[in-house]
Amino acid sequence: MKTLSIIKIGGKVIGDEDQKADLLKGFANIRGPKILIHGGGARANALAIQLGVPIKIHQGRRITDYPTLEIAIMVYGGLVNRQMVAQLQSLGMNACGLTGADQGTILSVRRPVKSIDFGYVGDIEKVNDNAIAQMLDNDIVPVFCALTHDGKGQLLNTNADTIASAIAVAMSDRYFTRLYYCFEKPGVLSDPHDEASVISRLDSDKYQQYRDNGTISAGMLPKLENAFRALRGGVQEVTLCNAEAIRKQNWSKSTSLCH
Amino acid sequence: MKTLSIIKIGGKVIGDEDQKADLLKGFANIRGPKILIHGGGARANALAIQLGVPIKIHQGRRITDYPTLEIAIMVYGGLVNRQMVAQLQSLGMNACGLTGADQGTILSVRRPVKSIDFGYVGDIEKVNDNAIAQMLDNDIVPVFCALTHDGKGQLLNTNADTIASAIAVAMSDRYFTRLYYCFEKPGVLSDPHDEASVISRLDSDKYQQYRDNGTISAGMLPKLENAFRALRGGVQEVTLCNAEAIRKQNWSKSTSLCH
Repeated sequence: MKTLSIIKIGGKVIGDEDQKADLLKGFANIRGPKILIHGGGARANALAIQLGVPIKIHQGRRITDYPTLEIAIMVYGGLVNRQMVAQLQSLGMNACGLTGADQGTILSVRRPVKSIDFGYVGDIEKVNDNAIAQMLDNDIVPVFCALTHDGKGQLLNTNADTIASAIAVAMSDRYFTRLYYCFEKPGVLSDPHDEASVISRLDSDKYQQYRDNGTISAGMLPKLENAFRALRGGVQEVTLCNAEAIRKQNWSKSTSLCH
Repeated sequence: MKTLSIIKIGGKVIGDEDQKADLLKGFANIRGPKILIHGGGARANALAIQLGVPIKIHQGRRITDYPTLEIAIMVYGGLVNRQMVAQLQSLGMNACGLTGADQGTILSVRRPVKSIDFGYVGDIEKVNDNAIAQMLDNDIVPVFCALTHDGKGQLLNTNADTIASAIAVAMSDRYFTRLYYCFEKPGVLSDPHDEASVISRLDSDKYQQYRDNGTISAGMLPKLENAFRALRGGVQEVTLCNAEAIRKQNWSKSTSLCH
């Protein structure tokens, strides 16, 4: 079974030129098939402010009205994705930037309205693993942004952590899949103020315990939910790390999840 | 030799919902391999105004300073391209949206500064016909926007008419290539105020004559230069038409170029 590396990078890593350079160098050095997935929320917020579009967040998730969707398409699907692809090309990778609409890679359904209407937000229904595998077979490096489509012509905003998890699960049947959540911390911290307090191995029991006693901060919970969902879905390795670990190809100071 | 249809659609067609619907329906009905290329200048201008970025045009060509390049990436590479791909997918086409950086499809060089500095504008050096042919072989419909890259990590603004011409020339060795410039008029008019005055066949002698005596308006000249360059470069058929002609698959009232 071939190894596939999937790296999700967060908005703060993208926004910091040093971290981004670390990440891109490290990503260039990874051998074999690989996929990059990125957010871009910070930049989207900046454009929203410039355009006078109010930013609405509910429990860490963006509420996407139509003007906000257009901003997401311009920033995630445009500015961040297109420039990242150009940079990867300059580093010798045959990158191709994608939303879930491109080559029909990720189909989603608009989130049903319950107590809250999240607007143009998509919950993933199906990852087209054949289309992605075909690109990988052709030595193409897919670069996904946080957008999917409903198959009826509508793009939908979709959390990049969730996209990474879903793609990893879909690919884990045919590849030994390594999923890396790369963010601004070296890993999951037992003390949010101490970067040396990385939890090196985290299983679901310990996670539940840390979550219940408040050791793991609220902001980390959606990321860890996605990470554990990937593990339960059959992804062979799931790691939370920073850009430096990717550059050094050394994850000894990162957090790896286990069953 | 298989037939390849390449359609370039202008900003005014994209901006008009009826014309765009006509275009997409017609495009869906074209059999065999096909490529779409689009501009988006009108929408980019609207965003520039919203963001307070001055619009600078020199002889019909945009001067692209860095803020203007970011707008081009957001609008051409983001909003217009991504939404077009989602719409094409809903019509059953396996579209994939691209800048020239994606899969290294179009390499350009920043235009040298002579009397005028056009800024982040790229002159095309090489179209990667192998990468495009591979997509077509996989029944993918490439959708190009007006952006290329320099191979060193920089995206560059590149006229969509020029991109269409260059792609058509590059593909004309392996496909019987039909290039359609689809814009808001039914064809090239001998009287700009009379839509019935379409010149049905235009050769380069007649073109020169019409250009010299002012029959063909200034705004049409760059388009026709690109169209004739395609014809001289080996493209088998070059047609100027409107969205209605594409929908009806009937080009009898359009302008076809001949040697």
